[in-house]
Amino acid sequence: VLNNKQWLVLNNCEFRLKVDSKEWFSDFRYLIGIMTGTSADGVDISLGKFSGSKLQEFTAELVEFQSFEFPASLKKLIELAIKNEARTREIAKLNFDLAYFFAKCVRSFLRKAKFPLKKLDAVAVHGQTVWHQPKSNNLGKNGFTLQLVSLSALTQLLKVPVVGDFRSKDVAVGGEGAPLVPIFDYNFLFSRKCDVITINIGGIANITYLPKDCKLSDVVAFDTGPGNTWIDGAMRILFGRNYDKDGETAKKGKLNKILLEKLKSNPFVAKAPPKSTGREEFSEKELRQIIKFCNENSIKDVDIVTTLTHFTAWSIAENIKRFANPNANIIVSGGGARNLFLLQLLKEYIQQNSSFEFKIFEPPEAKESFAFAFLGYLRMGGIASNIPNVTGARENISLGIIAT
Amino acid sequence: VLNNKQWLVLNNCEFRLKVDSKEWFSDFRYLIGIMTGTSADGVDISLGKFSGSKLQEFTAELVEFQSFEFPASLKKLIELAIKNEARTREIAKLNFDLAYFFAKCVRSFLRKAKFPLKKLDAVAVHGQTVWHQPKSNNLGKNGFTLQLVSLSALTQLLKVPVVGDFRSKDVAVGGEGAPLVPIFDYNFLFSRKCDVITINIGGIANITYLPKDCKLSDVVAFDTGPGNTWIDGAMRILFGRNYDKDGETAKKGKLNKILLEKLKSNPFVAKAPPKSTGREEFSEKELRQIIKFCNENSIKDVDIVTTLTHFTAWSIAENIKRFANPNANIIVSGGGARNLFLLQLLKEYIQQNSSFEFKIFEPPEAKESFAFAFLGYLRMGGIASNIPNVTGARENISLGIIAT
Repeated sequence: VLNNKQWLVLNNCEFRLKVDSKEWFSDFRYLIGIMTGTSADGVDISLGKFSGSKLQEFTAELVEFQSFEFPASLKKLIELAIKNEARTREIAKLNFDLAYFFAKCVRSFLRKAKFPLKKLDAVAVHGQTVWHQPKSNNLGKNGFTLQLVSLSALTQLLKVPVVGDFRSKDVAVGGEGAPLVPIFDYNFLFSRKCDVITINIGGIANITYLPKDCKLSDVVAFDTGPGNTWIDGAMRILFGRNYDKDGETAKKGKLNKILLEKLKSNPFVAKAPPKSTGREEFSEKELRQIIKFCNENSIKDVDIVTTLTHFTAWSIAENIKRFANPNANIIVSGGGARNLFLLQLLKEYIQQNSSFEFKIFEPPEAKESFAFAFLGYLRMGGIASNIPNVTGARENISLGIIAT
Repeated sequence: VLNNKQWLVLNNCEFRLKVDSKEWFSDFRYLIGIMTGTSADGVDISLGKFSGSKLQEFTAELVEFQSFEFPASLKKLIELAIKNEARTREIAKLNFDLAYFFAKCVRSFLRKAKFPLKKLDAVAVHGQTVWHQPKSNNLGKNGFTLQLVSLSALTQLLKVPVVGDFRSKDVAVGGEGAPLVPIFDYNFLFSRKCDVITINIGGIANITYLPKDCKLSDVVAFDTGPGNTWIDGAMRILFGRNYDKDGETAKKGKLNKILLEKLKSNPFVAKAPPKSTGREEFSEKELRQIIKFCNENSIKDVDIVTTLTHFTAWSIAENIKRFANPNANIIVSGGGARNLFLLQLLKEYIQQNSSFEFKIFEPPEAKESFAFAFLGYLRMGGIASNIPNVTGARENISLGIIAT
């Protein structure tokens, strides 16, 4: 199916600063993946066991998973940074504070997992996205993106190679720098027998569409719009809670059609892929304007949550109908997979043919951190991991840099 | 003199992500060093040729040197960041804009030098310091520092290994993250016959004191206070020029003793090393207060420049007298070495015994970028480069991370 030689492009540096690939691929490798999403509620840590050196011959096992909440001071600093209100000093502090905090989390995680630090081959860390403005969102000018955590500090504190900054190289050569999980989906969730769609519902929602028996260049993946971000935001603002547990609040309310039509006018949903978004576009500021509109039109608080949940489900389904295939096996992951009402609506909006499956990745929150551990595994072996068709980058790149 | 085994400590990672040291040290290596100081006027680029694998057996040759001015928009963004007025988006943009700009400069530099990119072994980049707050300046709490330039973007654009972020590891384990040039001084400016002091006058001034035939652990090095920062600032504010060419403005004025006494009360000068500072302490804001004081006391503009030049010379000399040895061979570098009036005052304040030499490093501006090329050479070979006695770090570290 795929020309392996074409795929196994190593970084074409004159002097190759990389692990000897043969040595790296000679044994099982254990990597930790650290993911912090746009929701800024905490950090997800996966320990993965990987082997293999060729596309679709890799193996991956999720050994352990745990989430850690951010301390209040760190969460506050992250929120400030994401809202574009952090200044130089705060960005510098946050960059190091994340390293100090992650180092502590990793040690605690490994103690609980009874897994010695010395057995760990590397840590792959996504970093906290505080800004993401690729070329396409920058009027065609040079793009930029910023995932915070000092890789130097983290490797110095843990004495383990740290792979990070996965999005920057792709953005530097004209790509969206996102989505990056499709390479994981293509390797582990692909099917020769039927189309597969993976949906990840984090702060932002995204899908990977893997047509039956497809080649890597046939993979389609993009952000669909909001995931939990507006539902969580509305719960915080209107009910003082962090999220809508099991979707119970949304279930109690009524759909407001005027509000739904208004939300549907958002141009991002209908935009053709490749596309990526972040909390810049689906911001708390915009949410507050929506809530203001609702208050002026006497829309009940509970109905706001219900309607935002409808909009979220609709926007994912609409993207699947327009740009993928609603009659595919569907695998849902991310914290949003725990919102039962959202899942029910998603099924209804997709109107999937009953012969197809609708499954949950278990545990749903682990997928992204697990996938980044795999991206770290690929970087350590010098294997390319972006999909130029997906990100729009001009080059095929082994994403991330290795700090030691 | 020195136990080489003790010195050649490699990063003690379980899985060593490094160039094979044997291979790296098997031939001459060409590295570019890119330095941008706190004065934010432009970027200095050195091409160095290095060999050797052991302390004091290294060779270094400066092949080519060139300075590039920052475009106005970039300079503005840097100034904003240094003044702690840049926000998240601006920091993210600056981080990438520096990479795009440096990549362009490196290509132009190499064309002019007729040196092919393919022959280059690595680029060592200091990055633009926009914040530096080590443990000692942070009430004993965890330190942090931020040198901007996306290493990922730069290596992707140049297809050459990029070594950078030299200060973070040292800061992460309790060090000042500065000064880092002493390892260069110890290797190339050391003498078995007499004491040597190197003085670098950039935005901030610093010295390295190398007692005769000393061991690495005997090296003393620290920031002495302002270099050109206040002189340049006063020239800009009062005369609309970027700097005091050859010190001609300062030469015309008169020393104001009241102002000098006021300046001498700055506590940084008398503080015992290890100590480091930046534009946080010797800021434009403070300079504007000094100028305001002068205006209120009818001190002439030209006399302000003269007195600031006296203060700068005095603060360097005072540090040499208190914490080093005025009767050492002295080697001055940095843009400040072109300020003839400053050099004359410096000699007078030091009151050096006439049997000692007072030399200029040629060209004086090249030293820091050349030294960082050497730090990159050491990192590529996995050799430690901080001096714990100098920075105060708890660990001996091969500074920097290698992006490929």
